[in-house]
Amino acid sequence: MIAQLLDGRIVANAVYHDLKNEIDQLREDGCEPFLTVVIVGDDPASKTYVRNKHRACEKNGIRSETIELPAETTEADLLGLISELNGNDDVHGILVQLPLPGHIREDRIIEAIVPEKDVDGFHPVNRGKLAAGADCFEPCTPAGIRHIFKHYHIEPKGKHLVVIGRSQIVGIPFALMMMQKKEWANATVTVCHTATADVSQHTKMADIVVLAAGHPHTLTGDMIKPGCVVIDVGTNRVEDAQAEKGYRWVGDADFDSVKEIAGMITPVPGGVGPMTIAMLLKNTVRAAKLLHQK
Amino acid sequence: MIAQLLDGRIVANAVYHDLKNEIDQLREDGCEPFLTVVIVGDDPASKTYVRNKHRACEKNGIRSETIELPAETTEADLLGLISELNGNDDVHGILVQLPLPGHIREDRIIEAIVPEKDVDGFHPVNRGKLAAGADCFEPCTPAGIRHIFKHYHIEPKGKHLVVIGRSQIVGIPFALMMMQKKEWANATVTVCHTATADVSQHTKMADIVVLAAGHPHTLTGDMIKPGCVVIDVGTNRVEDAQAEKGYRWVGDADFDSVKEIAGMITPVPGGVGPMTIAMLLKNTVRAAKLLHQK
Repeated sequence: MIAQLLDGRIVANAVYHDLKNEIDQLREDGCEPFLTVVIVGDDPASKTYVRNKHRACEKNGIRSETIELPAETTEADLLGLISELNGNDDVHGILVQLPLPGHIREDRIIEAIVPEKDVDGFHPVNRGKLAAGADCFEPCTPAGIRHIFKHYHIEPKGKHLVVIGRSQIVGIPFALMMMQKKEWANATVTVCHTATADVSQHTKMADIVVLAAGHPHTLTGDMIKPGCVVIDVGTNRVEDAQAEKGYRWVGDADFDSVKEIAGMITPVPGGVGPMTIAMLLKNTVRAAKLLHQK
Repeated sequence: MIAQLLDGRIVANAVYHDLKNEIDQLREDGCEPFLTVVIVGDDPASKTYVRNKHRACEKNGIRSETIELPAETTEADLLGLISELNGNDDVHGILVQLPLPGHIREDRIIEAIVPEKDVDGFHPVNRGKLAAGADCFEPCTPAGIRHIFKHYHIEPKGKHLVVIGRSQIVGIPFALMMMQKKEWANATVTVCHTATADVSQHTKMADIVVLAAGHPHTLTGDMIKPGCVVIDVGTNRVEDAQAEKGYRWVGDADFDSVKEIAGMITPVPGGVGPMTIAMLLKNTVRAAKLLHQK
């Protein structure tokens, strides 16, 4: 078997297409969706992420601004800025790029954002509502996987879905979403992680495997059953002398062996990656709508 | 094999014993732990639960008051009362007995309680912190199971733990607790529910099974592996002509067959049940401490 590739760029474009109508409608109603991104310090990877978010906003008719603060910014100053942004009616989405410098407590900062503008879905209120299956801002990467499922008619209901990795950004929220009694979820969910005795015992039973471990070769072809759907959230930089830059990006799956057994698989890059920013924009438009209705 | 019984009354008494010192200390510091329970309407089961909570408080040196409101109380009136209790510095814990009459939105009421007095652990902020592995009020029944584990030296780390049932009160929060990278957790967790194709496929692999489905005979002896730990949260009323009242309480496990295969099992009644109120009192003392420190 050669697995069908699940192309995140196609799904993201479909999301942008649908968003365009919503954004046009909002503008007609006198509301310009506006995302503010805050970045503290000079981490090059973070800067690239922030730049990509800004570009995606520009391209899709969402106003966006990036506030760059020096690495020595105090927690109090950052809290002051958040409070200002909370109170600014023009701002609909607030995103603080993580990680923050060590002297700033990330949880304090995240909790300071009003939940209504928390387009990353990281505020405890949004996490708690997610756990309860209530309406909320879903974190972007899990929400992106959900959209891939929808686009490719992958129905988790009654399936055994194994998540590898228990991060707060992907693994745990996605597991929580998939175990809910919802039309688009309702899967039997297993969460594996670094303390799991034998990951393959679980993946061999799985209909769907979601990889969010952050390690190459976490899943090999002999660990899954034929026809399994593999969603690969990993983006690991590996050295490659033959690549132009001396490295390339690979997922958590051993792609060559997994694609021979799986029924469907997301490539890296071009799978889940493009969905994360698409969902950020979707959350921003949602925030604008809800705040504008108020 | 005849399973060892895990006696929740013994564990609860150990908790009360430890709490006594904390309560004495608080009183010496001029703080009297105080729980307010609000009940709306005349549901007899709810009234019994509330009475039991009140008695446990009395017996263990925690001041408690029950506010009984008529079934026709409006949502606005209940919100007004919550707001008053939030602002009353003497009150450390606020518990609104569920279910509420249909015309009152439970989520609105729960969200109105300040998270610092939410001793049930049902506020989105506490749920969200639980999901993130942060310090919070843990919901009472899952916290009670954790204490049973501790008392009987059951270590979930690296074990495969299967939860049957995805309620917001037991199944989901307990699954979330057990998948965290904590000394007392760190299990590989599977959540089964009504849409699970074949529950026994999962339970047969499990080292620990937690039953929170609300149906008798959810688990039978042929569904588990020898030595498995079975925690039974179910309390189902079944007719029994030979019983004095015409009925008796049974758990979700088919006790007679499961006890022959399991290594340990909680009986019903007398297993998890007594732990729920013990944890409510523990949360109330915790709330009093934190609010008093402020």
